[in-house]
Order: sequence, then structure tokens, then C-alpha cells
Amino acid sequence: MSGTLHGVGLGPGDPELLTVKAVRTLEATGIVAYFAKAGRCGYARNIASRWLRPDCTEVPLHYPVTTEIRFDHPAYAEQLAAFYEASTERLAGYLEAGQDVALICEGDPLFYGSFMHLYLRLKPRFPCRIVPGVTGMSGCWTAAGVPMTWGDDTLAVLPGTLPANQLREKLASADAIVVMKLGQNLPKVRAALDALGLTARALYIERGTMEAEVVMPLAAKTDDEAPYFSVILVPGEGRRP
Amino acid sequence: MSGTLHGVGLGPGDPELLTVKAVRTLEATGIVAYFAKAGRCGYARNIASRWLRPDCTEVPLHYPVTTEIRFDHPAYAEQLAAFYEASTERLAGYLEAGQDVALICEGDPLFYGSFMHLYLRLKPRFPCRIVPGVTGMSGCWTAAGVPMTWGDDTLAVLPGTLPANQLREKLASADAIVVMKLGQNLPKVRAALDALGLTARALYIERGTMEAEVVMPLAAKTDDEAPYFSVILVPGEGRRP
Repeated sequence: MSGTLHGVGLGPGDPELLTVKAVRTLEATGIVAYFAKAGRCGYARNIASRWLRPDCTEVPLHYPVTTEIRFDHPAYAEQLAAFYEASTERLAGYLEAGQDVALICEGDPLFYGSFMHLYLRLKPRFPCRIVPGVTGMSGCWTAAGVPMTWGDDTLAVLPGTLPANQLREKLASADAIVVMKLGQNLPKVRAALDALGLTARALYIERGTMEAEVVMPLAAKTDDEAPYFSVILVPGEGRRP
Repeated sequence: MSGTLHGVGLGPGDPELLTVKAVRTLEATGIVAYFAKAGRCGYARNIASRWLRPDCTEVPLHYPVTTEIRFDHPAYAEQLAAFYEASTERLAGYLEAGQDVALICEGDPLFYGSFMHLYLRLKPRFPCRIVPGVTGMSGCWTAAGVPMTWGDDTLAVLPGTLPANQLREKLASADAIVVMKLGQNLPKVRAALDALGLTARALYIERGTMEAEVVMPLAAKTDDEAPYFSVILVPGEGRRP
């Protein structure tokens, strides 16, 4: 009997925002794996901290590269593919031995993120079960306290990595907008929002629901620093009886 | 001292998908309000059932109209506005008396849904606190077990109520797609997906994470019945090292 892979969403950052199902899965699982930057504990591990069994075996999966090589460079894809293959085999070892593995991830397991790369590789070989989580973007609009979508509003979720012309086109056609993956793309995103007259409606949020949470109008943000857990939100303005 | 309004997201349907924070909020709150169709218990009340305090006071808020009048008819907006005003005053009565109120809602409180209509009215008058939830769409892609967005995929969330030409335009420009509010709009949505060659990639999901969950390729769905908790998903196909 092989073990089961549990993809466990941990939510946006506040440890109280794990679901009951996520907590119970961690209570029942002896092997806990997570992605992390080399030399770091990792976001997922930090969020899950208080919920892990004291006797669990931790399996940190350290990225060989994060931002040292551009994501569109062939070496980036090569190194990541080799890393995902090796990580898959590491987890497969436990699963083949009949042990359940919880691969924990911030946000929701099937909405962006590295979990999916191991999931697709392990799914044909082992039973898998997903525990959905509150997304990082939900955490951010909760931090801001703004209703995001009303009535028949459309929502566009856009990575800041898009080329400027595509970004502008997609920003123009949505009612409510979430821009993720800001990082070095913040000036480009800001210029696109400015050009469309959307800056006055835009909010900048960092680490929504976490302790060091930041919420401000985008117009009030004077620097171009934007860490991993940051988004820009343009709330919808749809039907409100 | 006035009471606090808690907007409590309950997640997509499985009662184990409430967050720890949602459960604790319900344990600490004596007044629990929820929207429901007249004569029905209501989706939110059903999901929260096992988590309510036996001694809590339930405040059902019954919609005066749901699908009997078209949403674009002036009478619909008038009746709903009056209902939201009256519901606001009902909850304000408890809050003024210093009692906390939990207004529970399926999914996430700030992502579509009726909660926001009372929240905007009560926010200027009383302390408010939001507990985000797993969205219904996360519940649906979890039920299907499909990774939804990869790498730099864009996601479009579209209501099936959009006019056919707008629907087609927006479907054409997104990488990953969620279509909600299907109901009587299913034939129109299906035609738009067909025209763009997207039907083969589309999944139809009903009541994701609930007991009567249905997951099937859209192409395999032969009828045009689509209840409240149904969506169409077109998963993204982005970068996969």
C-alpha cells in the first residue's frame, strides 16, 4: 500500500487562516515537505509552524535558483526541471514506503505556486488529495477591507511580468483587477495604470493578514520596492442596490 | 460600547473548509445572521451548521426576490435596496446594544455575494472585521483536481450574465478562465467557448467539495441545467519546467 500525497493550502499568512481540514491533515501526517529558498526556512514552513506535529519529519526542498537567473533564460527552466524531478523522487521514496506526505504551500495549492509541478509528476503514480486554501489575494483584499467584485463585475488576475502592451490591454478590459508578481515590474505596472487613469482607484498591499502587513493607496507609495507577498488591487464598482 | 460586525467566510461547502479563525469567531459570537431564500435554510446556514453555538440567536435575512424578477428590472433593484436597508437596521439593533454579530457567507465575504451590501452600510457606524474564506471557485478546481494557473498565466473570472460578444472577447484574451453565474446562461457560454475552440479544455463543476459534487468535461454535459453552485473552468497551460 503506497502513501497518499496531500497538497495542503495554508492560506495567505495568518496561521489562524488554515482550514480545519488543513490542521487535521497536518495532525495526521508524519512527513511534511515544503519549498524554500536555500538558507531560508520558507514561507510555508513559517505559516504552518504552530500546527506541525513535534515528531514529524521535515523535508525542505531548496530551490537551486530563485531570482539569480531570469525566468526566461533556458538555464532557469533546466535547473528548475531537474530540481522538480529530484524533489519528486524524494517524495516518491516516502510514498512508495507507504508513508503519507503533506506538501504544504502558502495560499491555494492549485493557484500558481510550485506544488503543481510535483503534483503533475506524482499524480499518475500515487493517490493524491488536495486541501484548498484561502488565496494570497483574498488575504490582501481582506487586509484592505475592500469589497473586490460586485454583481456582474469581471475580475482579471494578471502577473506583473506581462509585456507593457499586454498589461495595458488587459487592465483596460477588466472591472476588478489583481496584479501579482510585482517585484521589479512595479514601475511598468504603475505606468500602465497611470495611462488608463486607474491609479486613483488602486491599492498597494504587502503581506496581507501577516504581522508586517502594509496597506496604502498606490498613489501614496513613493518607492519602487515590492516584495514577494505584494499585490496591487483595483476593486470593482459593479451593481450595488 | 457597540458590538463588532464579523463578516465570516465559510468556504466552498465542505464544513471542514472553514478556517480556524472562522470557527473561533463563531464560538465567540452569540448572534449569527445569514441570507437565505424565503422558506429555505440557506447555503451559509447549512455549511456552518456544526460550528454554531447551541445557544446562539439566529437572524435569517430572507431575500424578497431571487429569480422571480430579472436582475436588470428596476423593481429588482428597488426591492433589494429596501431589503438591504431593513437588514442593516436589524443588525444595527444588535450592534448598538453592544452585541457582536457574525454575518456568515459561503465562499469569501469580499468576493461577490450579499455580505458586501450590508458591510458598506454598517462600516461607517460600527467596528467591522472580516474573516476571509476559501472561494467557491477554489473548491471547484480542487474537486476537479486540476492546476488552474501556471507561471505567468492570466486568470479571468467572468459572470455568465455578460452579453455574448463581451463574453467571447474576454474568453479569447485570458489564459485560464472561470465562468460563474451559469444558470440560464449556460447555452450562451457554451456557444462562446465552442466558437473559440475552448470546449475541449473546459470542465463543468457543480457543488465542488460538497456531498453532491459533480465534475465532468463540459463536452460530456448533455443538458443545460446549471444550479447556483456551478462553474465552468478552463485551466491555464502556462510555463511548466
